Amino acid sequence: LQACLVNGRETVQLSVNDRGLLYGDGVFETMSVVDGELPLLSYHLERLRCGCERLGIACPSADLLQAEIVQLSANSKRAVLKLILTRGEAGRGYVSTATAVPTRILQRHSWPATPRRYWDSGVRVRFCRLRLALQPALAGIKHLNRLEQILARAEWQDENMQEGLLCDSEGYIVEGVSHNLFLVNGDELITPDLTQTGVAGVMRAYILSQLPAQGIHVRIEKVTPEAVLAADGLFLCNSVHGIWPICEIDAKPRQQNRLVCELRDRIARIIPYP
Amino acid sequence: LQACLVNGRETVQLSVNDRGLLYGDGVFETMSVVDGELPLLSYHLERLRCGCERLGIACPSADLLQAEIVQLSANSKRAVLKLILTRGEAGRGYVSTATAVPTRILQRHSWPATPRRYWDSGVRVRFCRLRLALQPALAGIKHLNRLEQILARAEWQDENMQEGLLCDSEGYIVEGVSHNLFLVNGDELITPDLTQTGVAGVMRAYILSQLPAQGIHVRIEKVTPEAVLAADGLFLCNSVHGIWPICEIDAKPRQQNRLVCELRDRIARIIPYP
Repeated sequence: LQACLVNGRETVQLSVNDRGLLYGDGVFETMSVVDGELPLLSYHLERLRCGCERLGIACPSADLLQAEIVQLSANSKRAVLKLILTRGEAGRGYVSTATAVPTRILQRHSWPATPRRYWDSGVRVRFCRLRLALQPALAGIKHLNRLEQILARAEWQDENMQEGLLCDSEGYIVEGVSHNLFLVNGDELITPDLTQTGVAGVMRAYILSQLPAQGIHVRIEKVTPEAVLAADGLFLCNSVHGIWPICEIDAKPRQQNRLVCELRDRIARIIPYP
Repeated sequence: LQACLVNGRETVQLSVNDRGLLYGDGVFETMSVVDGELPLLSYHLERLRCGCERLGIACPSADLLQAEIVQLSANSKRAVLKLILTRGEAGRGYVSTATAVPTRILQRHSWPATPRRYWDSGVRVRFCRLRLALQPALAGIKHLNRLEQILARAEWQDENMQEGLLCDSEGYIVEGVSHNLFLVNGDELITPDLTQTGVAGVMRAYILSQLPAQGIHVRIEKVTPEAVLAADGLFLCNSVHGIWPICEIDAKPRQQNRLVCELRDRIARIIPYP
């Protein structure tokens, strides 16, 4: 952690009465800083606003958030900003009082030292045993209730395994532990539907928004593990890594795919390789 | 909040790098203090240990926890102690390092001013719209991922409505937002199965442990809303309130039940009425 603002004040301390701690009652964004700028800021602020709306949290104005983000990122060549927004402090009990004032926690972390080959050659993934529960009331939101991801990530210690793919309780593939997933078949893209569970990532939203102009058709639908294994190409994406091709699933190697490499290089124009 | 210890030190501040905040990565206990004693302490410590074991958190020794609990409760006639145990501080990312040292947060709150009639005449409840997701990996654990409870509790503002009953995504009744539920039929008790979702409350465990000696048979099984409506008697329970009879569901009044009143009075011997 390089720097931290809590409600605009430089500190790394938070009240033990904050509902973010008590109940995971809040949302967060993980954002890339590139040369003092945040390439996908408008997407992050929009997702934060949507998450707050669904949870009934009073989202601070985009101007206020943006001012603090600029303050913490302006002089960074490369960093990761994490913005946590909780419902604020409260007494004991689940009921939230109308007087609760949301807490803004903005952290700047150093850019992770990630090997370049994850972009060039791709990453190794596995299927996780943990199944994501179906909860449409929380699906898509990047909220602070992340025990499913923690249990899934704890399934492997092998440092040569970069990600785990998660099924939902019906057996459909949803996403990775900290990435969204795309399949390529011919010239078409497929990404799992996230209306029942999963996190609707900002990089996923950005990719989806860019595809029409590139003449690429995409389908958002239920995806089986068999469809994943049979796909021509596969990639993971998030706001820090951009696009990582998948080169191996459960020790079975996969061929490079032309369209995956093209999309990866296109995203690298806004979030450059390390 | 009357007093607070974080890792044994008097403070109300916590690090913004604590995984309890970042991911809801921890468990908690809410305990009654009666004349400086904790009537169900052994049950609370046992549930905490079980929760930690399932989440892979290194639970501190019962001796250490008990010493801090005694320190904070010894001079209290009546209070609520809340113990939060998180996986501790960590960097960004879901992976938990073996070096993480769990954080202990022990809070003493004043005893809530709850009307005596909730015990005497019973409480009004409603059926919630939110459905609890089925997640056997987390079912039963009193963990810090509580957005479902927050969304359910936000469904009503009526102060004359004391609790909401929650169904799971298959439509079976699981529990209240902050109480477990028992049905009485004749001389038999029924309480919902909690292997797929829900919180296995300490008061529920205590009641279940006491019933055989009283010659009362209990079934733990899937419970439909119809079975709830058709029951001879209904009660809610938790570690702070003991037993509350239910006197009304969705505005339909219900008769007092002899066995519910007997059990309520029995629990009041260890957690007295206000």
